[in-house]
Amino acid sequence: MSETAPPHGFPDSEFEARTARAQAIVAAHGFDALVVCTPPNVRYFTGFDSQFWESPTRPWFVVVPAEGRPVAVVPEIGAPAFAATWLERVESWPAPRPDDDGTSLLAGVLDALPRRHGRIGFELGREQALRMPVAQFLELRGRLRDLELANGGPCLWEIRMVKTPAETARIRHVCRLASAAFAAVPQLVRIGDSEREACRKLRIKLLRRGADAVPFLPGISGPGGVAQIVCGPSDRMLQEGDILFFDTGATYDGYFCDFDRNYAVGRVDDAAKRAHEAMWRATEAGIAAARPGATAEQVFEAMAPICAAAGSLGNNVGRMGHGLGLQLTEPPSNMPGDATVLQPGMVLTIEPGIEYAPGRMITHEENLAVTEDGAELLTERAPRELPVIG
Amino acid sequence: MSETAPPHGFPDSEFEARTARAQAIVAAHGFDALVVCTPPNVRYFTGFDSQFWESPTRPWFVVVPAEGRPVAVVPEIGAPAFAATWLERVESWPAPRPDDDGTSLLAGVLDALPRRHGRIGFELGREQALRMPVAQFLELRGRLRDLELANGGPCLWEIRMVKTPAETARIRHVCRLASAAFAAVPQLVRIGDSEREACRKLRIKLLRRGADAVPFLPGISGPGGVAQIVCGPSDRMLQEGDILFFDTGATYDGYFCDFDRNYAVGRVDDAAKRAHEAMWRATEAGIAAARPGATAEQVFEAMAPICAAAGSLGNNVGRMGHGLGLQLTEPPSNMPGDATVLQPGMVLTIEPGIEYAPGRMITHEENLAVTEDGAELLTERAPRELPVIG
Repeated sequence: MSETAPPHGFPDSEFEARTARAQAIVAAHGFDALVVCTPPNVRYFTGFDSQFWESPTRPWFVVVPAEGRPVAVVPEIGAPAFAATWLERVESWPAPRPDDDGTSLLAGVLDALPRRHGRIGFELGREQALRMPVAQFLELRGRLRDLELANGGPCLWEIRMVKTPAETARIRHVCRLASAAFAAVPQLVRIGDSEREACRKLRIKLLRRGADAVPFLPGISGPGGVAQIVCGPSDRMLQEGDILFFDTGATYDGYFCDFDRNYAVGRVDDAAKRAHEAMWRATEAGIAAARPGATAEQVFEAMAPICAAAGSLGNNVGRMGHGLGLQLTEPPSNMPGDATVLQPGMVLTIEPGIEYAPGRMITHEENLAVTEDGAELLTERAPRELPVIG
Repeated sequence: MSETAPPHGFPDSEFEARTARAQAIVAAHGFDALVVCTPPNVRYFTGFDSQFWESPTRPWFVVVPAEGRPVAVVPEIGAPAFAATWLERVESWPAPRPDDDGTSLLAGVLDALPRRHGRIGFELGREQALRMPVAQFLELRGRLRDLELANGGPCLWEIRMVKTPAETARIRHVCRLASAAFAAVPQLVRIGDSEREACRKLRIKLLRRGADAVPFLPGISGPGGVAQIVCGPSDRMLQEGDILFFDTGATYDGYFCDFDRNYAVGRVDDAAKRAHEAMWRATEAGIAAARPGATAEQVFEAMAPICAAAGSLGNNVGRMGHGLGLQLTEPPSNMPGDATVLQPGMVLTIEPGIEYAPGRMITHEENLAVTEDGAELLTERAPRELPVIG
């Protein structure tokens, strides 16, 4: 692990600052409180770091009131761990309790909140999936008829879209360790390895470099490019002339990197090399466009003509980069129609891609943090020429 | 990797059999179709194996009609991969499309289904979190006023609770490789290692043994037992007298194991040894009770008196085991009130635990498959005496 690794966890002052800023945004959105129940939002406000979310059995809730510290409403199994966070009030119930898995307890907490707007924001919006049964949410809504349980999605994304320096430090760290792992790939992976074996080697390298976990590591190959970028690895063996595409979302202290790298397996044809080089240039243009005051749409527009000139047949990704942080992908989206204005503290991927021939896609990706006067590249820039395996 | 590893992926006949059985259950529940949008249910019916779920941006849908093959309604980025599954019909839209991220396309597919009951089952129930924005679900419901979008949770769990032999083969395989990794811990981990370093070593060992991924690997330590079992690892260093507790949900071909192991760090006191031995005996009783015809509650009742006799101060887990498969935890729950009758093909954890002194918890866990005449233990049984590190 690098000597410069940030510590795991944050001081209370970090959560105080996050919550104070959030409460101003919550008030501006006309909510009396937010209720969060998904791992990244619960962690954002409390520091609760658990792998126990992998079990879908029990819902967990954190209420962010208009003033004061958040309140945990959690299963008994979680009470000792929440008592160790900066929160002062932890309510719990004996879970699982199928008849009432926290519904009445949460309803009581919400009912007792001071009312100004009569609206509570829940994670109901875009790029959000409520982590409680919808049937339970509808029951809760029925019990609290004099409160509006409304879509807190835009409010929450406004809060999380701008990272604190301590958050950016984690993303920078994981970007650096993943960059080092990617640089080692030509020494790690061999012609004849399966995609699965290649991924296993890279996964272990990422862990050895200091990643806490590697939730996202597709490795996909194909002659001169890949036919799709969402499934893989498979048992396909790497062959001369392939492009090997790795994407990675490794985490450190809960924060993701999200960037990809391409490798030539032996000799690849010139068309693949040209497409790769064009995507490298498109990435340069995207990085240059990512400045405070620009919109996410403008970042897209800086890259799109270079992709078109490179003979793009299309790009089924639908965008050319996005936010990242506690999640692999977060708003905004670098795409037409996304008018989000970039601000210092936002962390983005720059991700142009093309299908330059039928079934042959090439995609590039880097991560950056928007600064006061431009952007800081968090990843080690991909080489302009394809690195070669074998 | 073991030479006996099952292949990755299933033949079409597996999905045909799953779907035929599911459709009978769907009809019995009075639904015209199910709509699934979460990774395990989409994978169950289609074989779609992707890490791309890590991005929350785009919703994905699979419709399981009353007859015939499921229909995919997915973002364009996923169309090539779905075209390679056993499905015949793949509908897609250019996503992300904030105004209409699949809503109208899905509504059209559902509206055209043959109607008998006028009800469609969605993942709205217990131990389910709908993986689409709730605001989008409510909009869809508004558009389809003559259809009831109802809670398909009990129906889906009835389908998935009984595993096919091919599913059990994957769980057996990952249980065996994780058992081998656990057996190596006394050689891997040292006094003075941090919990985090111990977890990193075990994670790499699991990958080397053939796990595809390790989504769940808490490692927690404490003098004579652990104070909680949901958060960890931390930077705490292992000390003489500690119990080191590892739990793991590693996966192979999408299927989880979920079992734990305890280790003595140097010499631990007799009370910890006695509690460990009592939990070993409680596990024996739980395994013996897990037979076809018994209820999940009866499995609990077989273990509870042994925990009480060992001086249990309580158990904030709320149950003593549960189902597992494509998810780390699935129904049923071995707890009072769960009258689920065990059937051949169900795969369960047997998981007694006690707090034998304040802040000192000890938990055991094994995995088994219910058979025609009893149960097959899938894990290598934990040693009756605590294995020792250092």
